[in-house]
Amino acid sequence: MKYIQPLARLIAELSKLPSVGEKTAARYAYAILDAPESDAEALIDAIKDVRENVHFCRICGNFTEGDICEICATRKPTTICVVKEPRDITALEKVKGYTGVYHVLHGVISPIDRVGPDDIRIKELLARLDGVEEVILATNPDVEGEATAMYIARLIKPLGIKVTRIARGLPEGSVIEYADEGTLMRALRSRIEL
Amino acid sequence: MKYIQPLARLIAELSKLPSVGEKTAARYAYAILDAPESDAEALIDAIKDVRENVHFCRICGNFTEGDICEICATRKPTTICVVKEPRDITALEKVKGYTGVYHVLHGVISPIDRVGPDDIRIKELLARLDGVEEVILATNPDVEGEATAMYIARLIKPLGIKVTRIARGLPEGSVIEYADEGTLMRALRSRIEL
Repeated sequence: MKYIQPLARLIAELSKLPSVGEKTAARYAYAILDAPESDAEALIDAIKDVRENVHFCRICGNFTEGDICEICATRKPTTICVVKEPRDITALEKVKGYTGVYHVLHGVISPIDRVGPDDIRIKELLARLDGVEEVILATNPDVEGEATAMYIARLIKPLGIKVTRIARGLPEGSVIEYADEGTLMRALRSRIEL
Repeated sequence: MKYIQPLARLIAELSKLPSVGEKTAARYAYAILDAPESDAEALIDAIKDVRENVHFCRICGNFTEGDICEICATRKPTTICVVKEPRDITALEKVKGYTGVYHVLHGVISPIDRVGPDDIRIKELLARLDGVEEVILATNPDVEGEATAMYIARLIKPLGIKVTRIARGLPEGSVIEYADEGTLMRALRSRIEL
């Protein structure tokens, strides 16, 4: 397709968003072009605002507007839940039962992507274990997440701190018939007595 | 979900894009936050560029950076293809067989949406019929598009100008913007005189 230069440029930039192809980017570009002037300006301002005013919490690595995030500022750091990314905190906070703090690794160990233990925030985690009673490893239940959890567990367990891993099993509301073998095996193995 | 204010704001703005819900908007927001500084700036610049430098062609109503679009500047206006929106031109130009010019109505007659003949660029079309041999009505093959085509045909046919309608090779209720080239080509070739 041939677009005039400013449109082609905006479509190219929007195509960089996750799972956005040229057709979707073109739809967005036309919408931005058709929108009221105030909407276009609000979008630009919001992008600027996010880039300028969202930082990582100095303690846990979560997104924050200030120096320390609201969670670190208000909760007792006796339990630390370790996650891959700040967005995982948003998901876990929906549960509401958890009252501890978090630690964002900003990545997971992945030899294929050349990400080693020193490339993620493991040192920073080790540096804040004073007085900590439990470390919950809540990395994703995939190969890299599992390897990262095992690596961290081996470092922390010798310090006499309780180390746990979030449970793996059948997702709530799922159907056994369609569950994959790995999930079913894990669900069977970690069955709990009623 | 609870997001810090700048993120919540960006998610709200991105949710205004077509078919973008909160979850998709959040994915985009995180991507914009994670992107290199140059990418975020390029996106902002591209939005500004589109808003500041894309205008409507003075003659046909197509998108243009200048006063007159490239098509109007270079082609003989003996055949005018009438479309609803500038994006329809992008789609029709892919066919390559068409060598005439366009006229963008910037809407279609739609009593439900309170859009009458005077609200779209019909007067402007009538004003440029001098020397025109054929007017191809290429509005969408839906109720409004069909009604608009019939309305325009009734105005122009008495002037002794050939008026055609793109063939209904297009699936009923579909949108020109997303039609495949083959279907569009067939629709153009088998246009019928009204």
